[in-house]
Amino acid sequence: VKETSVVRTDKASKLVRPGRSRGRNAQPVARNARKRRTISQYLIDRLYQLGIRHVFGIPGDYVLGFYDQLCKSRIEVVGTTREDCAGFAADAYARIHGLGAVCVTYCVGGLSVVNSVAGAYAEKSPLVVISGAPGLRERGRNALLHHKVRDFDTQRQVFEKITVANAALEDPLTAFREIDRVVEASVRYKRPVYLELPRDRADVVPLHESPMTPITWRSDAKELSEAIDETSSMLADSKRPVMLIGVEAHRFGLQDLVVQIAEKNHIPMCSTLLGKSVVSESHPLYVGVYEGAMGREAPRKIIEDADCVLMIGTFMTDINLGIYTAQLDPAHCICATSEDLRIRHHHYHDVLLTDFVKELAKRTFGCAKQALPEIEDRRLKAFEPRSDTPVTVKRLFQKVNAILTEEMVVICDVGDALFAGADLTMLRRTEFLAPAYYTSMGFAVPAALGVLCADPRCRPIVLVGDGAFQMTGMELSTIFRRGLAPIVIVLNNKGYSTERFILDGPFNDIGNWAYHKIPELIGGGWGFEVRTETDLVKAVDAALANRDSFSLLNVHLDPYDRSEAMDRLTRRLAQQLGNSSAAGRRRS
Amino acid sequence: VKETSVVRTDKASKLVRPGRSRGRNAQPVARNARKRRTISQYLIDRLYQLGIRHVFGIPGDYVLGFYDQLCKSRIEVVGTTREDCAGFAADAYARIHGLGAVCVTYCVGGLSVVNSVAGAYAEKSPLVVISGAPGLRERGRNALLHHKVRDFDTQRQVFEKITVANAALEDPLTAFREIDRVVEASVRYKRPVYLELPRDRADVVPLHESPMTPITWRSDAKELSEAIDETSSMLADSKRPVMLIGVEAHRFGLQDLVVQIAEKNHIPMCSTLLGKSVVSESHPLYVGVYEGAMGREAPRKIIEDADCVLMIGTFMTDINLGIYTAQLDPAHCICATSEDLRIRHHHYHDVLLTDFVKELAKRTFGCAKQALPEIEDRRLKAFEPRSDTPVTVKRLFQKVNAILTEEMVVICDVGDALFAGADLTMLRRTEFLAPAYYTSMGFAVPAALGVLCADPRCRPIVLVGDGAFQMTGMELSTIFRRGLAPIVIVLNNKGYSTERFILDGPFNDIGNWAYHKIPELIGGGWGFEVRTETDLVKAVDAALANRDSFSLLNVHLDPYDRSEAMDRLTRRLAQQLGNSSAAGRRRS
Repeated sequence: VKETSVVRTDKASKLVRPGRSRGRNAQPVARNARKRRTISQYLIDRLYQLGIRHVFGIPGDYVLGFYDQLCKSRIEVVGTTREDCAGFAADAYARIHGLGAVCVTYCVGGLSVVNSVAGAYAEKSPLVVISGAPGLRERGRNALLHHKVRDFDTQRQVFEKITVANAALEDPLTAFREIDRVVEASVRYKRPVYLELPRDRADVVPLHESPMTPITWRSDAKELSEAIDETSSMLADSKRPVMLIGVEAHRFGLQDLVVQIAEKNHIPMCSTLLGKSVVSESHPLYVGVYEGAMGREAPRKIIEDADCVLMIGTFMTDINLGIYTAQLDPAHCICATSEDLRIRHHHYHDVLLTDFVKELAKRTFGCAKQALPEIEDRRLKAFEPRSDTPVTVKRLFQKVNAILTEEMVVICDVGDALFAGADLTMLRRTEFLAPAYYTSMGFAVPAALGVLCADPRCRPIVLVGDGAFQMTGMELSTIFRRGLAPIVIVLNNKGYSTERFILDGPFNDIGNWAYHKIPELIGGGWGFEVRTETDLVKAVDAALANRDSFSLLNVHLDPYDRSEAMDRLTRRLAQQLGNSSAAGRRRS
Repeated sequence: VKETSVVRTDKASKLVRPGRSRGRNAQPVARNARKRRTISQYLIDRLYQLGIRHVFGIPGDYVLGFYDQLCKSRIEVVGTTREDCAGFAADAYARIHGLGAVCVTYCVGGLSVVNSVAGAYAEKSPLVVISGAPGLRERGRNALLHHKVRDFDTQRQVFEKITVANAALEDPLTAFREIDRVVEASVRYKRPVYLELPRDRADVVPLHESPMTPITWRSDAKELSEAIDETSSMLADSKRPVMLIGVEAHRFGLQDLVVQIAEKNHIPMCSTLLGKSVVSESHPLYVGVYEGAMGREAPRKIIEDADCVLMIGTFMTDINLGIYTAQLDPAHCICATSEDLRIRHHHYHDVLLTDFVKELAKRTFGCAKQALPEIEDRRLKAFEPRSDTPVTVKRLFQKVNAILTEEMVVICDVGDALFAGADLTMLRRTEFLAPAYYTSMGFAVPAALGVLCADPRCRPIVLVGDGAFQMTGMELSTIFRRGLAPIVIVLNNKGYSTERFILDGPFNDIGNWAYHKIPELIGGGWGFEVRTETDLVKAVDAALANRDSFSLLNVHLDPYDRSEAMDRLTRRLAQQLGNSSAAGRRRS
């Protein structure tokens, strides 16, 4: 990848308008007042310019000054009940919107979003973490200021491990350039970055606004041309090509090009679990989610029988590969991601994913139409409730599948919510959100908040296990306060099911909350207790009609009931655990 | 400090009895079977030997094998709703018990306890963090296994920043020694440590049980003698000596010696906020909590008028020092902590805190009795409710003060719960627990769980603001499941009060939950809504009588009501914030 200096296209003077705050001090400001921006104002302008309209977080004394500036700007502050929820919400916002931001106080706040930010790193979600910090003038002799852990630099050092760029905005002379550098890294790499703002720097006006010369990355033309030629001839020579589409096709906005490649050349498409819904699942060329032996048969067969697999933005994670049950011969594969382009057994180091896909979309390979495998009818099926029949996981997901419309976004938490969720049919693209690789529990409810801030027109269906709900489900409080109306379905099987099927013990049992009573606790919303299929249909109908606030369905399930997908997965995971400790056991 | 090799006094062959598990495979095992312990078993034996009877955490597939071993051992696993709550509970357990442990899965678990562990680091609580990890045999080619963030080592690198020792137990040959080294560092430094156990190592039996030669640390005899002589003569020469006792006097078990020094020499005692209740507050020589200009007048006067201040285990934190309003002349101070011994303006590098206090306790300095300042009557006062009068912070704390008995432990969360709590009178020692330096919200409710596991005979009174309660209060679910009966008082002022008084904005408002309805949600416990003083008295009486489960008091307070302590503090913090950004404001 070449580094090239180019003239900045989004000229600062054009795009950054000063004094546009709507707060109590809002005043029309003359053009030349631009030079008078503080570090806070510059950061806020930069975020706004990149599309940020909401910042999630909780205030604290080290970041109060910046909060005050945010409140005076056109960016809205969305307070959450806990910092990690702010992290999940901002991550989901970024997945819908292209960039997210979370703003917290020093250490007690920042160190509480470490897990959320790590998840965004693992799953490539571009997130700007902004943290307050003690003022530099307070730090004499390594003073023991409240919230400090070891050194003043400890929090930044922690974030260095889970972000692609970071800066402590200590020097006003470089602060603006540092902001540019760090925020642009997030946009470029689609991963989190970290900015620390000492409270005595927030309102400082630098002496100079030294414009940065941004770096534009370009592919090496000869490498690109060779890679495209090679890919084209592999595809042209193949009888049974197939595309396997991953999450980066979404992160880098390549969905239209991907579909174009498929359509022009009659190539069937599958997706990974993390990439589910990156292309519409109702597309005639779409076959299904590929997860090796763990997934459904149709996508498994078409991928593993293919003589050429074009993977675009696909991460080779264990869950994506069905805990390594995938049978993929590298000799047939072209794997293009933002980090690497591998064709068969060799690598191109200087080809950008975006350039590769753009160039590929210009070509036609003359592939013959293939007979697509018989797949289940994806159209909405009427769900006929069987009265007095307890709800099962299978039937619950049949019902969910039957109500999906184009306005809906399905947000799955970890466990059967995710594994069974994989089999839902997404009509639009990118309406399925889940932490399918990092698999952190507690993502879904706060993510619904983020999704609704990013796109108020959509209707999230949140599928969440009871264990995950107990971690972050009270974020419904914020959802209620903002008058948002997601439908939250709690899969209440009284414990950590995935673990139960791997290795059971009392540690997998959790308390049985009356989740449907949460509206009484937080002051609003709609709760439903669901035991039978009749209950389910009634509750879903009512929930669909509730537009004023969230609806929560407490769906009682048998603790040992599970979807077929979960069954396949946990048998495989238990086997993995058995293999892992087999050597030790043999010796003891 | 000298490093000396000595013969191990707690011989492994004596103390570590193998095969003592009570689980389904429990068998009497011959003595020579000791050699057959697995890494998991050795770690569990070591924790048990150091007094650990409870481990807090949440399972996950990378740590399930170790959980299974824990369940077969004499250590109880206490599952929580969230990992950070497990961290707070284990921290509180350590503060009561001398050592605590938390056990979580890789990354999604471990990275969720970062804030709790950082708090334990900052406030010197000895905590062993045990995390599962992918098996070494699964890690080929940096595979993308679920929960992984960047490298397999990322989590360990994060914990390196917030612990005093860490090890990844990858090599069976050194695993036992690494366990010894790391766990002993926690006991020695009273700070968290980190152990990572790859799942394919948990059941491995090392070829050798190579006993470690433990290190014993001793003071340099000549330095110690010089420091003791110097301290003695300063005290002997002083007319108005006073002791200022900090939290390390508790962590290192020096309370009896500290009181002995005071009594033998008629020296009045004050404590810091973090050290509150390290000595009994009903001791005749005890004057109060010293917090500079922020605290009460009697302790301020006696400390600042003293001609010799003996500080034992005292951290010089900003809140301990009343946001630097403390007026302490170093020329009159002896500051002994585990990290440093400073007398006037010089330092002794090789004197251990314990040795210093032990030697000092042997001496008599011939100090004259001082007239102690008039202080408020500390005996229980009858609380006369004024009917139909709304509860205020001041009156609430008067009522709490009136019900304190020797069996009670007061656990304060951050905000006015802490600042007003500072004025409560603790009858026994170490019955006041609070994150008084790190000040992380959400500590108190999970801490009550830890305290009750460590000492089931005590009765915690939990004082928690509504903001902090929304972060971790649902941990009452675990408290209910275990049949524990703390009294939880929610100071419901509908927002983040401390921040309100520093810089107000809509971001300081939070939802108004009907906290007293939580029993209906989680299936048990007692809830009370309190608006007037009459309500308060009735609810407190009922709560005191409830021994079967927790009682929760939802105490409505005016959003702008506050204690005198909070008033003093926030005025000072706002001033600090003003000073910090003054330079920037002047320039803009």
